[in-house]
Amino acid sequence: MKPKLYLTLILSILIFSWNFSQDNGYDLWLKYDKIENQTIAKEYRDHLKSIVVQDADETTAIIKKELSLALKGLLGVAFEPSTFDSNINALVISKPENLPEDLKKSINTTKLEKDGFMIKAVTLSDKMHTLIIAKTNSGLLYGTFHFIRQLQQQKNIKNLEIVDNPQVDLRVLNHWDNLDRSVERGYAGFSIWNWHTLPDFIDQRYIDYARANASIGINGTVLTNVNSNALILTPLYLDKVKALAEVFRPYGIKVYLTARFSAPIEIGGLDTADPLDPKVINWWKTKTAEIYKLIPDFGGFLVKANSEGQPGPQNYGRTHLDGANMMASILKPHNGVVMWRAFVYSEHDPTDRAKQAYSEFIPDDGNYLDNVLIQVKNGAIDFQPREPFHPMFGAMPKTPLMMEFQITKEYLGFATHLVFLPKLFEEVLQSDTYQKGEGSTVAKVIDGSLHNKKITGMAGVANIGTDFNWTGHLFGQADLYGFGRLAWNPNLESATIAEEWLQLTFTTNKEFVEPIKKLLLNSRETVVNYMNPLGLHHIFDTGHHYGPGPWVSNLSRPEWNPVYYHKADDQGIGFDRSFTGSNAVDQYAPELAKKFGNIETCPEAYLLWFHHVPWEYKLKNGRTLWDNLGIKYQQGVDEVKGMIKTWEAMKPYVNSKQHKEVTMRLNIQLKEAIWWKDACMSYFKTFSKMDYPMEMEKPTHDLSYYQSLKFPFAPGIKPNWH
Amino acid sequence: MKPKLYLTLILSILIFSWNFSQDNGYDLWLKYDKIENQTIAKEYRDHLKSIVVQDADETTAIIKKELSLALKGLLGVAFEPSTFDSNINALVISKPENLPEDLKKSINTTKLEKDGFMIKAVTLSDKMHTLIIAKTNSGLLYGTFHFIRQLQQQKNIKNLEIVDNPQVDLRVLNHWDNLDRSVERGYAGFSIWNWHTLPDFIDQRYIDYARANASIGINGTVLTNVNSNALILTPLYLDKVKALAEVFRPYGIKVYLTARFSAPIEIGGLDTADPLDPKVINWWKTKTAEIYKLIPDFGGFLVKANSEGQPGPQNYGRTHLDGANMMASILKPHNGVVMWRAFVYSEHDPTDRAKQAYSEFIPDDGNYLDNVLIQVKNGAIDFQPREPFHPMFGAMPKTPLMMEFQITKEYLGFATHLVFLPKLFEEVLQSDTYQKGEGSTVAKVIDGSLHNKKITGMAGVANIGTDFNWTGHLFGQADLYGFGRLAWNPNLESATIAEEWLQLTFTTNKEFVEPIKKLLLNSRETVVNYMNPLGLHHIFDTGHHYGPGPWVSNLSRPEWNPVYYHKADDQGIGFDRSFTGSNAVDQYAPELAKKFGNIETCPEAYLLWFHHVPWEYKLKNGRTLWDNLGIKYQQGVDEVKGMIKTWEAMKPYVNSKQHKEVTMRLNIQLKEAIWWKDACMSYFKTFSKMDYPMEMEKPTHDLSYYQSLKFPFAPGIKPNWH
Repeated sequence: MKPKLYLTLILSILIFSWNFSQDNGYDLWLKYDKIENQTIAKEYRDHLKSIVVQDADETTAIIKKELSLALKGLLGVAFEPSTFDSNINALVISKPENLPEDLKKSINTTKLEKDGFMIKAVTLSDKMHTLIIAKTNSGLLYGTFHFIRQLQQQKNIKNLEIVDNPQVDLRVLNHWDNLDRSVERGYAGFSIWNWHTLPDFIDQRYIDYARANASIGINGTVLTNVNSNALILTPLYLDKVKALAEVFRPYGIKVYLTARFSAPIEIGGLDTADPLDPKVINWWKTKTAEIYKLIPDFGGFLVKANSEGQPGPQNYGRTHLDGANMMASILKPHNGVVMWRAFVYSEHDPTDRAKQAYSEFIPDDGNYLDNVLIQVKNGAIDFQPREPFHPMFGAMPKTPLMMEFQITKEYLGFATHLVFLPKLFEEVLQSDTYQKGEGSTVAKVIDGSLHNKKITGMAGVANIGTDFNWTGHLFGQADLYGFGRLAWNPNLESATIAEEWLQLTFTTNKEFVEPIKKLLLNSRETVVNYMNPLGLHHIFDTGHHYGPGPWVSNLSRPEWNPVYYHKADDQGIGFDRSFTGSNAVDQYAPELAKKFGNIETCPEAYLLWFHHVPWEYKLKNGRTLWDNLGIKYQQGVDEVKGMIKTWEAMKPYVNSKQHKEVTMRLNIQLKEAIWWKDACMSYFKTFSKMDYPMEMEKPTHDLSYYQSLKFPFAPGIKPNWH
Repeated sequence: MKPKLYLTLILSILIFSWNFSQDNGYDLWLKYDKIENQTIAKEYRDHLKSIVVQDADETTAIIKKELSLALKGLLGVAFEPSTFDSNINALVISKPENLPEDLKKSINTTKLEKDGFMIKAVTLSDKMHTLIIAKTNSGLLYGTFHFIRQLQQQKNIKNLEIVDNPQVDLRVLNHWDNLDRSVERGYAGFSIWNWHTLPDFIDQRYIDYARANASIGINGTVLTNVNSNALILTPLYLDKVKALAEVFRPYGIKVYLTARFSAPIEIGGLDTADPLDPKVINWWKTKTAEIYKLIPDFGGFLVKANSEGQPGPQNYGRTHLDGANMMASILKPHNGVVMWRAFVYSEHDPTDRAKQAYSEFIPDDGNYLDNVLIQVKNGAIDFQPREPFHPMFGAMPKTPLMMEFQITKEYLGFATHLVFLPKLFEEVLQSDTYQKGEGSTVAKVIDGSLHNKKITGMAGVANIGTDFNWTGHLFGQADLYGFGRLAWNPNLESATIAEEWLQLTFTTNKEFVEPIKKLLLNSRETVVNYMNPLGLHHIFDTGHHYGPGPWVSNLSRPEWNPVYYHKADDQGIGFDRSFTGSNAVDQYAPELAKKFGNIETCPEAYLLWFHHVPWEYKLKNGRTLWDNLGIKYQQGVDEVKGMIKTWEAMKPYVNSKQHKEVTMRLNIQLKEAIWWKDACMSYFKTFSKMDYPMEMEKPTHDLSYYQSLKFPFAPGIKPNWH
């Protein structure tokens, strides 16, 4: 064939595959498009003349397959793994002890920890070799993905010298997936676990899920909803769980399940689930042994107990400590852990909901068995657009505290709003708890360094569903990516993550990366502005949490009502948690308690979180609180308009289908930002009785219109949990 | 670049795109892989030197796009539509009146009807032109897809002379999709209608859905479940329906909705839904006008009334006739139709359920308004693996009867069993009703020719869901394809459909097509054998209909219990519908009543459908009924083993991922075929008290084991309809 015909063919194949594959986002950040820069491509090819993967097992097979896919895609050449020849530039992937002797001498592995990896360029008699070294198979896999990322980002690989150890032990996704495949707070379709066809049908998605997670260092997955169903613990389902565990194992991913506390009654036929009852203890012992027989590396249980109607030890007059330790003692011989959620609050407790978890758990610090982790949401209420960090962080020096972030956007616009969550995660992780003096950041609590914890963890409530692109919004992939990167290293900067993700997912072209990075980093403040400015929180519509519902006041439990949280009245608005209010500030270190507790020193971002503020109160800009509310809401709307404009200019850098899809979602975001502004300001005006500030565009409808909107089938809500 | 590098690149691109796209089945039968046979490819290129598409509107834009995609893919060349030049071999797509004058003379369009098309090769001063002619845009689109199929199948296009008119007017899919995106009897994931993000987000799937449907001639879609929710008729949802209608319109597809009969109460605020009440009539009038204002070509309503708990005219002492005519008279001025389902039965009616629809509707023949179609399931019970055709077919000479087939496999192994449904559809369509003498086939009822009907229709309950390949089982695509083809021409042979689909989906290689065609054509008898042999029916487990449940006898309504249908006792098994039994046979033409009603002349395939047969009764092969049952069940199992073997040998012709997926599903099918055999035979043995025939492999478990199996989250069931 003549070159011209080849070219036509290449073009036609490209166009063909373009239409059906790359542009649907299924590849996530693992896009291995050809590197167009010939200088760089040539350099890479020169340095990767041979691929040497020591060892041969399931994980190294995956490493080989991934490298072959990446190098074929990025460099257009096929590499076959071979044996080491010191005369050919090689990429060598090996545990330290299996390195060819020549190379062994040139490395020092003392800095290598756990599943960490080293990537090092070594020159040996004029040849340059690149070594990926790790002590474990998972480490080798992580190192390989990291190396591939360097190529995707077109970085210089000549002088690579990287040592990267995971700073957190358990890096897990929490799937709030139900057995009927609905996903609580899921906005990207339905559960990717097709329980019905498991264990006999292994969907390609399971494999690609494991691959994507491994590529960002995630090493655990809780398959089932925290509002759990005991049936997952029956033999029918455990066989299915086993099949998934076998898919995930070579990717270094352990499987965990949520354990319904009343399972001994529901599926065990007992008349109690009292954690101190010998029958109950024995039932869990037998059940746990059954699970480990099927899945020898089973991770353990995640438990939501005595929270929002879930059963728990308190049903039997026992404590969270009793429940967690009972399970932990049974899991201990199997090397399993219990992740016990601190998200508890009770309608029988009239104190500020924000205070209850702290009060419940802090007194038992030191009494938990050492394979218990207390899993704490980032804030004391519930994954709001902005919350101050949870006061439990730093306050349990003797107990491992896991972070629970929500990657799915329950309170952040579902899957239609572009909000870059790593920015939110960073704000929490870099918050200073002052619990061991200045610099006692939440990150140091989570990575265990503040109090020298033996086990550490970070959980993210998954935003994954059956949608082709996994996350609904294409930019939701950045949140998943960022969660994985922060679970590996809680001190990573969100700006770094944004840049990485954009380069991996779209292009390394600065004309695209720079403006969109800026857009990402601003997007979180934008959503705060148009939803919950100045410390407002939990003013979402009932149940589904879709859109504004600050007027809702008819729910059975007081703390489920938005009015409980904003407490707007003729005088002002906000929840007084100061010393003269609920005194929730007192749960923080004295430095913070003082700062937050004083309306004059409280950061304006948290103002209405900690204070009931008069409408006429002057903020730092000299304008009233009321004016500032309107100005912030308008600012949020205007910023979304700016995002649309920025995105519009990016057409040359994004394939047209993805560009169009993101545009459609941005337009929804703008519509809903305006809805938030108009609904909230119309409602709050009934209290402030003041004119809208001149900066603010007036609402187009009456308050009654906004109050009349009903969305009975908004996604992510499951009325019947059991 | 050197050829070698080109080749490497082509290879790498091919491998890359292979992994992520073509092998997931998303393309359905619209696979435009390069034609490897160079002779044929050259011939096609020679004959398609120029593409001329007359007219310029939304539909012709689609035609151009499709041709460009197909020709690029199949022939590797890019074609731009151009104007006609008689000196260049051209493909000309045009309405007769817009044809270039030279070409006008050479065609005769008298045979062209409705949305039909002509494809004709015309030689003009030594140049060969291929004309695709139709009177409507939809016809041009259908003709284009048909022409592309000829290329995909590598047929000779030199002497093409095709006239193909649709034999049925309404060719519609029925989606049993709920507003929460669950799909009743859906086994391919969830509803592709993402109501939450509509109307602002137009998922690419909507476009690809329309394209796939248009390619097989489907021209209507009922978006919502027959067990319907009135909210679909509220403005919030109608805006979303409008957005879908706009996507579908240029593809020639009309949108229909299910109308909940009690909507005037539920969303209209009335205190009655009595079809004769002026307030109710007025409410429907206003509502219908509202819909047509948004969607001028709205198709009409599909109604399930007074059936399985759905509200209907009988709640007010009115009849189906009253209800249907009320709606029809309102739709008439808008050119809309009412599709009124005949699937009605009542627990208050003690007669054989099989008889009730006939009794209810036949007396009103001639009284329905002319835009009412009565939609009748293929059999009198409910989409069983085999049923005699519904006796209503041919029995309402003055009323349009629509066929309702079920493409989704509620009673045919969900989406894990390979069962080629066009074979079942063909059996029904070619059944002779004898209603106007011999040769009065069901097909002639459906295409209207038997009684000269003014409007005709065929509905298929969709098997489409969010799964990447649309239908769960890759071979489920054949059922969708076959439904479309049969709706276009009810007299097509299933063997033709099988061959077409295999060639379009996999390869034209006979080594693959011939054995797999045979496998497809046998697969339906196989499922009958291992599920419901010899006329058994409705012995499925409760509610979800997953697996065998012949022992179920505790449901509130007698006719919901499998024991109602098989009536096994110490004497024998089967439902006596003969003259001495329920006399259901009497609803058929006398020729058939006589044949079915006599145990000696009744086809063995329907034996237990029409007769209660003694266990010791000898069948034609000289063996007892009991032995024959065991032999048939075993035969079904053995046939699945044969399918697995055949498929195993097909590895060279199918991409590895798809091959593996189908293998996994076939293994499930085998497991479940054995389960059916073992469960049913163990249970029936408690009545027959006879030994299993020696041909049959003994059950591996006790009956109690099979009876203990529970599947609370089997897919497709939705406990709360409203």
